[in-house]
Amino acid sequence: MFKINENYLKLPGSYLFSTIAKKVSAFTEANPDKPIIRLGIGDVTQPLAPAVIQALHSAVDEMGNAETFHGYAPDLGYSFLRETIAKEDYEAKGCQIAADEIFVSDGAKSDSANIQEIFSNDCKIAVCDPVYPVYVDSNVMAGRTGSYDPKTEMWSDVIYMPCTKDNDFVPELPKETPDLIYLCYPNNPTGSALTKEQLQVWVDYANKNGSVIIYDAAYEAYISQENVPHSIYECPGARTCAIELRSFSKNAGFTGTRLGFTVIPKELMCGEVSLHSLWARRHGTKYNGAPYIIQKAGEAVYSPEGKAQLKDQVAYYMKNASVIYQGLKDAGYDVSGGINAPYIWMQTPKGMGSWEFFDYLLEKANVVGTPGAGFGPSGEGCFRLTAFGTYENTVAAMERIKQL
Amino acid sequence: MFKINENYLKLPGSYLFSTIAKKVSAFTEANPDKPIIRLGIGDVTQPLAPAVIQALHSAVDEMGNAETFHGYAPDLGYSFLRETIAKEDYEAKGCQIAADEIFVSDGAKSDSANIQEIFSNDCKIAVCDPVYPVYVDSNVMAGRTGSYDPKTEMWSDVIYMPCTKDNDFVPELPKETPDLIYLCYPNNPTGSALTKEQLQVWVDYANKNGSVIIYDAAYEAYISQENVPHSIYECPGARTCAIELRSFSKNAGFTGTRLGFTVIPKELMCGEVSLHSLWARRHGTKYNGAPYIIQKAGEAVYSPEGKAQLKDQVAYYMKNASVIYQGLKDAGYDVSGGINAPYIWMQTPKGMGSWEFFDYLLEKANVVGTPGAGFGPSGEGCFRLTAFGTYENTVAAMERIKQL
Repeated sequence: MFKINENYLKLPGSYLFSTIAKKVSAFTEANPDKPIIRLGIGDVTQPLAPAVIQALHSAVDEMGNAETFHGYAPDLGYSFLRETIAKEDYEAKGCQIAADEIFVSDGAKSDSANIQEIFSNDCKIAVCDPVYPVYVDSNVMAGRTGSYDPKTEMWSDVIYMPCTKDNDFVPELPKETPDLIYLCYPNNPTGSALTKEQLQVWVDYANKNGSVIIYDAAYEAYISQENVPHSIYECPGARTCAIELRSFSKNAGFTGTRLGFTVIPKELMCGEVSLHSLWARRHGTKYNGAPYIIQKAGEAVYSPEGKAQLKDQVAYYMKNASVIYQGLKDAGYDVSGGINAPYIWMQTPKGMGSWEFFDYLLEKANVVGTPGAGFGPSGEGCFRLTAFGTYENTVAAMERIKQL
Repeated sequence: MFKINENYLKLPGSYLFSTIAKKVSAFTEANPDKPIIRLGIGDVTQPLAPAVIQALHSAVDEMGNAETFHGYAPDLGYSFLRETIAKEDYEAKGCQIAADEIFVSDGAKSDSANIQEIFSNDCKIAVCDPVYPVYVDSNVMAGRTGSYDPKTEMWSDVIYMPCTKDNDFVPELPKETPDLIYLCYPNNPTGSALTKEQLQVWVDYANKNGSVIIYDAAYEAYISQENVPHSIYECPGARTCAIELRSFSKNAGFTGTRLGFTVIPKELMCGEVSLHSLWARRHGTKYNGAPYIIQKAGEAVYSPEGKAQLKDQVAYYMKNASVIYQGLKDAGYDVSGGINAPYIWMQTPKGMGSWEFFDYLLEKANVVGTPGAGFGPSGEGCFRLTAFGTYENTVAAMERIKQL
């Protein structure tokens, strides 16, 4: 008789955003007259930019003609996109990343879940707390996290690095040395950022201790301050210790279009084996490349028109961020984030847990946010709102919250 | 110091089709004056059908307007596509498959590589020999296959089921009971098919022995004979033992567009746990849905226009299949396949190994095929040609082979 992967059964409950979707759907059914404003999940609302739409139409036409039709894509991505990324995202920022160190994929969620696969099951992971749930859950499914304690909501074999108001949301170096360190900056969910000096501390630590940093830079387009790095490769030494994950979801609205990439420098070695070769092998065996038309859309993101249009789109969302930030402050809440990231992080009112505040906001203001506890134990007592709504809805949501 | 997944290092050489690509590229560089005809990899050459192109343009327009823009897709696929598949691929064939038993993905390669993840690492797999390399390689990477013997080219913990001319390419029931049985029919690479009675034997065997069949039906659109089942769910009892993988790559030319789906019936249980729930959890945690525009393209495959256009496309490739079949027969080779599948399988000339024949054909006829040995030890002495070229190239390739 066949057996299942028992690690799956260790996962407590369902994926955070599925739980929220169910709660909201139950509320909407019971209260069809109360229009909900969703500032919960990090999904965008603005349409794809005209330059991207034009590239999509043009690529679709190519697919309709035998002479310009594209079958299987190169596993690791088309050169036209990898070279553009190398030039625009790295060379332009003074980072040494070659086109063949870039692996194009269907998005940063898949990559952040799959990357653990190339490491030994003995590896110990460290995560910020609170954190994007996929990093931990994908390691749970691989059997790398030990046992779960429902009281503390922590895994026995995971190193948690609290990021709270007390340390200004910057994790301290862990006491126990981790093998894999997941860092996401600008941060989801807290909306905080690291300066280049602060990130350099981690690069030096990883090189000294033989750790690998998995650096999720999905929100780099929202950086507004000069001393905040857009890529970990801005820090000397990162080529020997860091993998970077990037997404087109938030800078170009590709949440429903699906495109991302992972960077693995060729110097990142475990003895004689390069992680680059392992990830290439994974792509070759388990993946068949992102669709041609989507890769052409990705290329258009870097065209002069695309850049200008998307700069406006990011500015639109960041205007929402400041509306939320100021609105919550005016309503008397303790607020952070929203300056280099599209997320605003707030402390819930005294004595109110984060799920309790979720229900309160849903029922009283008909506004959906995300409870901090859903991102990890140190998220308890906090709450996340996102800037990805429309401007009108964002303003309306703040009015409702102020009137509570 | 971090450690890698050592199982990756056990994989011998590179992915089959990467090796072929390198050999062809070296030949082309050395012989720029000799035009190559590629009948090796199973990549299509005909453009996307007009109905599909129209659906893509229309979906792209939707993505360009805020009112009709689509962000994150449902993890498991849009209802419009899942319901269409349930009706057209299953209800129409008398199979009981509900829309919510269908998981939309970016293609059957990813699904066939990822599906092993929901099973225990103790599970023993059985594969046909020769076989599509991804089934075995993905299990090697998970550490499920034991050690590799370079002499026999076999893994110690894999059950091989030879499919050769002697058994008419129909595997015999294995002596040792496997937990997971990979079956692909119509078959890649041999081009053979199973009758409904022959497939029923496997369904009954799996139910009796507590095995799960992973049934890859990527080539079902090429079936021309009446008693050959399009889905394993045409066999009574399959709902409690079978997972089916489907692709849009070969029936609709989506190799560079990426769309597929996996069916897991809710009755497929391991004790109290449904495999359906495990795969849903994997999708939710590690995947973010196929792009909206690609799912709309998939829906158009089932429209009356789409169906008619794609019937013609399949007929075009099957005309190539008969050109290859007859051409090789006329040239004196021992040939099979090509009736219910786009693959033609031939015995190499006496005393010539399959890689030797690959080099011979490349050098003397400038035609690229796939060596049988690349699909497993029982593929030695055989060779695969595909019907996915253009008609003109296919005819020209046969002329060249006949003149050898």
